[in-house]
Amino acid sequence: MMANKMYKDIGYAKVDTSRQLRKGYLETIYCEGKEPEEILGIFKVFYSNKNNVLLTRVKHFQYEFLKKHFKDIEYNKKARTITMIQNKIEKKGEIAICTAGTSDIGVAEEAFVTAEFFGSNVKKYYDVGIAGIHRLLDKIEEIKKANIIIAIAGMEGALPSVIAGLVDIPVIAVPTSVGYGTSFRGISALMTMLNSCAEGITVVNIDNGFGAGYSANQINRKITGA
Amino acid sequence: MMANKMYKDIGYAKVDTSRQLRKGYLETIYCEGKEPEEILGIFKVFYSNKNNVLLTRVKHFQYEFLKKHFKDIEYNKKARTITMIQNKIEKKGEIAICTAGTSDIGVAEEAFVTAEFFGSNVKKYYDVGIAGIHRLLDKIEEIKKANIIIAIAGMEGALPSVIAGLVDIPVIAVPTSVGYGTSFRGISALMTMLNSCAEGITVVNIDNGFGAGYSANQINRKITGA
Amino acid sequence: MMANKMYKDIGYAKVDTSRQLRKGYLETIYCEGKEPEEILGIFKVFYSNKNNVLLTRVKHFQYEFLKKHFKDIEYNKKARTITMIQNKIEKKGEIAICTAGTSDIGVAEEAFVTAEFFGSNVKKYYDVGIAGIHRLLDKIEEIKKANIIIAIAGMEGALPSVIAGLVDIPVIAVPTSVGYGTSFRGISALMTMLNSCAEGITVVNIDNGFGAGYSANQINRKITGA
Amino acid sequence: MMANKMYKDIGYAKVDTSRQLRKGYLETIYCEGKEPEEILGIFKVFYSNKNNVLLTRVKHFQYEFLKKHFKDIEYNKKARTITMIQNKIEKKGEIAICTAGTSDIGVAEEAFVTAEFFGSNVKKYYDVGIAGIHRLLDKIEEIKKANIIIAIAGMEGALPSVIAGLVDIPVIAVPTSVGYGTSFRGISALMTMLNSCAEGITVVNIDNGFGAGYSANQINRKITGA
Amino acid sequence: MMANKMYKDIGYAKVDTSRQLRKGYLETIYCEGKEPEEILGIFKVFYSNKNNVLLTRVKHFQYEFLKKHFKDIEYNKKARTITMIQNKIEKKGEIAICTAGTSDIGVAEEAFVTAEFFGSNVKKYYDVGIAGIHRLLDKIEEIKKANIIIAIAGMEGALPSVIAGLVDIPVIAVPTSVGYGTSFRGISALMTMLNSCAEGITVVNIDNGFGAGYSANQINRKITGA
Amino acid sequence: MMANKMYKDIGYAKVDTSRQLRKGYLETIYCEGKEPEEILGIFKVFYSNKNNVLLTRVKHFQYEFLKKHFKDIEYNKKARTITMIQNKIEKKGEIAICTAGTSDIGVAEEAFVTAEFFGSNVKKYYDVGIAGIHRLLDKIEEIKKANIIIAIAGMEGALPSVIAGLVDIPVIAVPTSVGYGTSFRGISALMTMLNSCAEGITVVNIDNGFGAGYSANQINRKITGA
Amino acid sequence: MMANKMYKDIGYAKVDTSRQLRKGYLETIYCEGKEPEEILGIFKVFYSNKNNVLLTRVKHFQYEFLKKHFKDIEYNKKARTITMIQNKIEKKGEIAICTAGTSDIGVAEEAFVTAEFFGSNVKKYYDVGIAGIHRLLDKIEEIKKANIIIAIAGMEGALPSVIAGLVDIPVIAVPTSVGYGTSFRGISALMTMLNSCAEGITVVNIDNGFGAGYSANQINRKITGA
Amino acid sequence: MMANKMYKDIGYAKVDTSRQLRKGYLETIYCEGKEPEEILGIFKVFYSNKNNVLLTRVKHFQYEFLKKHFKDIEYNKKARTITMIQNKIEKKGEIAICTAGTSDIGVAEEAFVTAEFFGSNVKKYYDVGIAGIHRLLDKIEEIKKANIIIAIAGMEGALPSVIAGLVDIPVIAVPTSVGYGTSFRGISALMTMLNSCAEGITVVNIDNGFGAGYSANQINRKITGA
Repeated sequence: MMANKMYKDIGYAKVDTSRQLRKGYLETIYCEGKEPEEILGIFKVFYSNKNNVLLTRVKHFQYEFLKKHFKDIEYNKKARTITMIQNKIEKKGEIAICTAGTSDIGVAEEAFVTAEFFGSNVKKYYDVGIAGIHRLLDKIEEIKKANIIIAIAGMEGALPSVIAGLVDIPVIAVPTSVGYGTSFRGISALMTMLNSCAEGITVVNIDNGFGAGYSANQINRKITGA
Repeated sequence: MMANKMYKDIGYAKVDTSRQLRKGYLETIYCEGKEPEEILGIFKVFYSNKNNVLLTRVKHFQYEFLKKHFKDIEYNKKARTITMIQNKIEKKGEIAICTAGTSDIGVAEEAFVTAEFFGSNVKKYYDVGIAGIHRLLDKIEEIKKANIIIAIAGMEGALPSVIAGLVDIPVIAVPTSVGYGTSFRGISALMTMLNSCAEGITVVNIDNGFGAGYSANQINRKITGA
Repeated sequence: MMANKMYKDIGYAKVDTSRQLRKGYLETIYCEGKEPEEILGIFKVFYSNKNNVLLTRVKHFQYEFLKKHFKDIEYNKKARTITMIQNKIEKKGEIAICTAGTSDIGVAEEAFVTAEFFGSNVKKYYDVGIAGIHRLLDKIEEIKKANIIIAIAGMEGALPSVIAGLVDIPVIAVPTSVGYGTSFRGISALMTMLNSCAEGITVVNIDNGFGAGYSANQINRKITGA
Repeated sequence: MMANKMYKDIGYAKVDTSRQLRKGYLETIYCEGKEPEEILGIFKVFYSNKNNVLLTRVKHFQYEFLKKHFKDIEYNKKARTITMIQNKIEKKGEIAICTAGTSDIGVAEEAFVTAEFFGSNVKKYYDVGIAGIHRLLDKIEEIKKANIIIAIAGMEGALPSVIAGLVDIPVIAVPTSVGYGTSFRGISALMTMLNSCAEGITVVNIDNGFGAGYSANQINRKITGA
Repeated sequence: MMANKMYKDIGYAKVDTSRQLRKGYLETIYCEGKEPEEILGIFKVFYSNKNNVLLTRVKHFQYEFLKKHFKDIEYNKKARTITMIQNKIEKKGEIAICTAGTSDIGVAEEAFVTAEFFGSNVKKYYDVGIAGIHRLLDKIEEIKKANIIIAIAGMEGALPSVIAGLVDIPVIAVPTSVGYGTSFRGISALMTMLNSCAEGITVVNIDNGFGAGYSANQINRKITGA
Repeated sequence: MMANKMYKDIGYAKVDTSRQLRKGYLETIYCEGKEPEEILGIFKVFYSNKNNVLLTRVKHFQYEFLKKHFKDIEYNKKARTITMIQNKIEKKGEIAICTAGTSDIGVAEEAFVTAEFFGSNVKKYYDVGIAGIHRLLDKIEEIKKANIIIAIAGMEGALPSVIAGLVDIPVIAVPTSVGYGTSFRGISALMTMLNSCAEGITVVNIDNGFGAGYSANQINRKITGA
Repeated sequence: MMANKMYKDIGYAKVDTSRQLRKGYLETIYCEGKEPEEILGIFKVFYSNKNNVLLTRVKHFQYEFLKKHFKDIEYNKKARTITMIQNKIEKKGEIAICTAGTSDIGVAEEAFVTAEFFGSNVKKYYDVGIAGIHRLLDKIEEIKKANIIIAIAGMEGALPSVIAGLVDIPVIAVPTSVGYGTSFRGISALMTMLNSCAEGITVVNIDNGFGAGYSANQINRKITGA
Repeated sequence: MMANKMYKDIGYAKVDTSRQLRKGYLETIYCEGKEPEEILGIFKVFYSNKNNVLLTRVKHFQYEFLKKHFKDIEYNKKARTITMIQNKIEKKGEIAICTAGTSDIGVAEEAFVTAEFFGSNVKKYYDVGIAGIHRLLDKIEEIKKANIIIAIAGMEGALPSVIAGLVDIPVIAVPTSVGYGTSFRGISALMTMLNSCAEGITVVNIDNGFGAGYSANQINRKITGA
């Protein structure tokens, strides 16, 4: 199974260059806790292979360091992502991304960038939380046209339950760390989503916009036969 | 402030006989962890004073023991309550009690018995949870006629949020221990309710139907000028 | 139910302009985690509609940004609120706000600003905690004149229990994150309040002065027939 | 939106008879905490409508009670489910269900019954946990043929991560309450799954075989164009 | 320091026979999780040494087994203790034991038996919780005569705080597992006591009547010069 | 009971001037979360009454502000305390303060300042933790001469258990937030102390040097007949 | 790597028959949550291969069922283990197993049976907890002769720390669920052990006597060159 | 037992100078929460005794302070350690240190420095996590040559389980605080490791590279007969 080395060893990292064959996609770079120099080193391996590259959880100083070496990278400040597109991405199908409030938009943008990067069309429905449910009901017929829904909420996190009660489409729920006191930095929303009495909901980690975007894209592309 | 003794000391309990003056109502008997003989002893103090009596968290064997001594007590099995009415109760105003599911009815019945005992009219709306939100929307105009709403839910506990988003009436939220896994015996629902982004919600302890009924009655009677 | 659009869509927010009809009050702006520009955008929608506006959890830099555009806003530093009054508020009834200590005053002020904004008279009783219970007992007859009491405490959070044991008035308990060690940033006080053996207490989230003020006002105005 | 009543009110339940239109499927009956008589009442509504019925979390005494009234129900003891098939189900596509150990089979069977009930073909791969990873590697090519994978594990719950590292197919992870000590009845496995560094995993509640089966079927059928 | 063996080794236990010299008292036998035969074995070592013996957390079947071999043991069912007095105990000073409610009496009795066993006089004040604070205020002058106070409470556990606010005597607080929901089997009361804003409180483990009785006796006897 | 006002109301605080009568000591000022101006205001009330004053949890900027108004205050940086002595304190008896490590000294100093302020002699035994148990055993005979022991430890917090196993003197255990990972900022040490199998230990809140010093002094002075 | 199938598939289990080659030992059977018939099926695979077999967490009814089919199995009731020895085990080196109390013996016996089964000599030191530290000090020279120490404790779990402070031998710490209240079924002891300030301690799961015995044997045999 | 003083008392610390005799190694200095001057004082005691010294958890300002006094200290920034080697260390045997990702390297380096300091050879295998399991499988034969393995992982922490399933060598697992959301700063990884179904794993505290390096060295040296 392991004929020739399928990764590049650069000391502090073993960059997984066999991924596209095995998983269909390239590895992304998770930047939290990495030195700018380490990020640059991993980035160069992908870059020299003419791959598209996605960096997540990018801090501003990491972006500024990388920018000096690669002018053409694209930085999404809200999403905290960097993308470097060397091969055109063909987008398929449609994913709907809904947020309960304005404060959840950072996580939503990470999901958006990720889903587009891996090849999905995305429509955004921001600030449709249940405190004013008419805003959601007004958009629900449009939302129903997507192949899959990403529903993002902090505080009590009830948005995915309400959406899943109204549609027959898979819902990926993303709890966010928005809130205070007993929101416990997203645990309250996470628990709400795991315990939902509405069917058709699966959940990812708190603030994990990347994971939601990745899984939604994977499902969306399978549905569209990509 | 403490002229004559305002309680009756029966050794294992100091029965608070001054309560009606101070708080407007008589003490109820919380039966959890009390021996049947102890319950009987406290019950007799109230009975001989010609008071109405409410017992909560009554286990069946406690009921059977008490039944032998007092034939006229009324037992609500679902609510786990006993009531002994020696003075007619005049009911005022209206409280709406809503539950998300059928499994929450035990807690709802405890709230119902309590609210009636202390002098409120109650209307019940059971099984109107958000998985099928049309059931709630169908009843919402009727619910709006109440002075106060008790909203009871287990699992993800989103019902109070949705109700509070639709009405301009105080909502008392009651989390129940219905659910499994990460419902954590009601903690998930409790956290949902405390973190609600909808305004006008206050919360009581998990499964605390009594507390909700007591507070709702207190507010309802003040609104009706009782 | 959804005849014409009842909200204004400004991209990152769907401002709920139908709220006054549906809930009786306008939406407030929760500023935590929002960019100053986003707050300004939402603020303008309300402002141009000639509405009164309440902003909560305002950070100082957010206030300074907004101040540049709107001179007439009123900033309460302790409460972390901004209010913009374009229509005179007619205040009704009376709410008593009690705090256990001096450190709880920030939360109390948020409740105070909120309750006044929505139309209630408020009397303040600060630093009447149970370590020196004579301070509370000295004021209790005056407190009893209110329609509803907001009791605010951190650390062990016992103040609401003691008050509720002395009066026949609904008590809304607010745990605060004041304390250290096992106070767990308010969880200890929250649990005390949820488990109170005194009747007539409902609870809101940790440090949620706004929620307490909102609910207290809602109940107070119903009692006064407003 | 609410022209005629779209549910049947039987007092303790409002049976959602509009579900097939709205969600594409009928409601199932969650039996935990319901009286046998209540289950029977809800069951009868579906039965008389000539619907297929799925009951989950069935306790043995509940089964025995229902059996007296309906001979043709099918009971899966491991899965704790009852099914009543009145209309033939046409199964599409393929779902792979993998368990880490033998003790996880109960949850897997609930997922299996659910997925088949709603219209999917299922292949089972039980006891392929990572303590002897060659068992999984031996089956991985076969597993890859499915449209979606349900990966079920208790204790440390690492199976979904390992599978997701090897395939390019969506994985729904189900933590189980199997284990002792710090497994905390499934929380350890849940956290492992939420924090997985492998991409393409979404998670459901602890022991929620039903939820996994439901979501997997929903995705599988969309992929097959059903 | 270890001249001759200062314990007796009976295989499953090393009975500490040097304790009276080192600590001033004999070891007690904690019966939780021990086989009746094991308890008997340890008991016999103390008995044959003509020592007084205290057994705590005694289950009824353990008592019945021991009773067959030693007729003269004294069993306190509420306290779940057994005592065997072979040398008369001279009691000194005075300890006040207060409980918030009737359900806390089991823990109080364990403290009472322990404190008397080790040589203190005890006065009991049961059911003086803060829901009816006049009951406590009525007794407070009498309570003040003790050298030390044991204050026992479940649910919100506020009794020790209120007492410590009224007296200048050390208070040992004992949380009990009485309550439901967020009482978390005593954790809520424990946290209340640890966070008390009243001075002069120290705390022992949940339901640890023995520990409170032991420490209170130790302090009481030092104060009386014993 | 409340003849004349026994406190001074300065708006944001009700300074308890009757405390010396009621509790035997004056109130201290807990500075966490208080504005320097508020601290000054409270300080002045005590100062003008010619009382000794103790301030705890003093931040450096609070100290510097106060220093400008009162030159004669004494600041202990490690303990984060300020004392102002206007009446000579007569010290009695002896308290032993032991710490497990060097990092626990801040908490120990708070206990030391408090115990001296209220009238006890103190001896310090720092860095005698159980990793090198001979350091403790070397001092144990000297420690035994105290009336009461304060044992302070972070990390695993085993020091109080080991001490209590060696002496017949009351031990007040103080967990500290020293440690990392699963020390959970003192919770691990707290739980160790609450669960100690050694007798004669009571516990105070994490990092609560003040509480330990206060209670130890209270007991020490009673033992010396003060 | 996977030439021929290296496991036997019996439907509900894939019995790992390649283990001895890969790991050096055979798989054991963890019986929790398995049907007696399932245990029997797995047992037979090992038996027919002429392997030694170890079963852990055996419930009594499981033992009785298996006993009917295999007379020669050996049942250790305290350890809850069954062993079937078909090939003589040659024991090497020495492991010391210490327990804090008598109630920890069940876990210790599981470690003992496991360590012997896999080929180590074991010496037991039961009931040497720190409440009477002279019992431990009396045995420490003997304990030091082992290659590795297993230290088992519930409640505050301080035994491993004290031992590791006295010896230069690896210590495997096992927390047990012995205790009540804040022992939280072993979590308190676990946290103590993980946070130990003494060096040379590693930890296994709560009550995991098997894991400790397995690892200790693995290390012991490597030290003895086996 | 304590003939002459076996430690040096410098006021804020009792430096354990008898350690080499008792434990075989010198004490290291844990720098968290210590003043630079305190560290210097302890350092000097060891230095003047001509001992090798290891400092852990060194903050940069602590290093800079110490550097002024001792030029020859060696600082490892990633590991946050300082070493001062006055006597040549003879290294024996071999330890393998594996990390799941690049972000875990800081903890790995602390383990590496520690293991070398106390006398072991170390080989590093960084970034071999299970998301790309071929990287681990490629190295596994080489890893197998070590006497003991340290496996370090954050997030879901599954690396030690996978390794232990493939080898017959003791594995010390180190959870790291790498991750976000429900990783809970290492608790998720810790629980994974404690609950591992693979045999031969023991665990140390979160981020405790020192503890892992110390224990691994202790075992490695015993295996090599050192």
